[in-house]
Amino acid sequence: MGTIRREGPVCTGNPQRLDVRDRPSKLEAEWVTGFVDGEGCFHVGIAAHPDMRMHFQVLPEFTVVQHERDVQLLHALKSFFGCGVVRSNHGDRAAYRVRSRSDLMWTIVPFFVEHPLQSQKRGDFMLFRRVLEMMELDVHLTRSGVEGIRALAGQMNRGRSR
Amino acid sequence: MGTIRREGPVCTGNPQRLDVRDRPSKLEAEWVTGFVDGEGCFHVGIAAHPDMRMHFQVLPEFTVVQHERDVQLLHALKSFFGCGVVRSNHGDRAAYRVRSRSDLMWTIVPFFVEHPLQSQKRGDFMLFRRVLEMMELDVHLTRSGVEGIRALAGQMNRGRSR
Repeated sequence: MGTIRREGPVCTGNPQRLDVRDRPSKLEAEWVTGFVDGEGCFHVGIAAHPDMRMHFQVLPEFTVVQHERDVQLLHALKSFFGCGVVRSNHGDRAAYRVRSRSDLMWTIVPFFVEHPLQSQKRGDFMLFRRVLEMMELDVHLTRSGVEGIRALAGQMNRGRSR
Repeated sequence: MGTIRREGPVCTGNPQRLDVRDRPSKLEAEWVTGFVDGEGCFHVGIAAHPDMRMHFQVLPEFTVVQHERDVQLLHALKSFFGCGVVRSNHGDRAAYRVRSRSDLMWTIVPFFVEHPLQSQKRGDFMLFRRVLEMMELDVHLTRSGVEGIRALAGQMNRGRSR
């Protein structure tokens, strides 16, 4: 079992960004998997986008939402993965969010391949990974590709989304 | 980082008990801490009990609740800790629950001392541990002791209970 330790940064520039409170945690890989089994979400949004070639934009996203009193944990996740952003969310919630396709494909996905989720959320992750791999092949730039991705996205987060 | 592996049992006797589905997971200690940081609850109930000397019963409890499709994870937690029960809960939920004072004091508490929670739930755990230590000293059998425990219990799960 590998252990990755990175230092947690303090974000100050953008007021929407949330400061680190308490100690920045150094997280263990297996802790991260357990926490994401409980609190993480793999999601593929498909948004209408008239300006784009296919009129649709495919938006894969990995998020972890917490009460803002645990925002330091979200910053620790950001440090751990070395990508993504921490933002205030609805009300008193904060979110760690990774939307960059390359970060998802080359950082988030390989981590959860190496450290498999134990909950049924693993099924969502496998669909999520498949969508990203289709996007690597530009499948989302064809009409049938978007429909295929829409079908996969429809199978995700059944009874799990928050 | 220690790794504890125990085999997961299949419960069949009591129909309220839920069978293990899918593979029984073998859990890593740090995964358990991460999952409990997300999904666990440390709670101290104080119930009116006219037949008891102090007219109150102090009921510490550690629980993890999941959608029943992840019941195999709750059985894996039960196997991991070697104590507690898995029961169906409200609606489509299942719960892993430890209520035995000796199991809480000598199994659950030492585990989370060795593998500290990273979220603010750690504060709940520390209050929970203090209540159990007071109970070891029979403090809950005095009127002032029950009031002291009630005060500690009132500080727990603020904005975290489910």
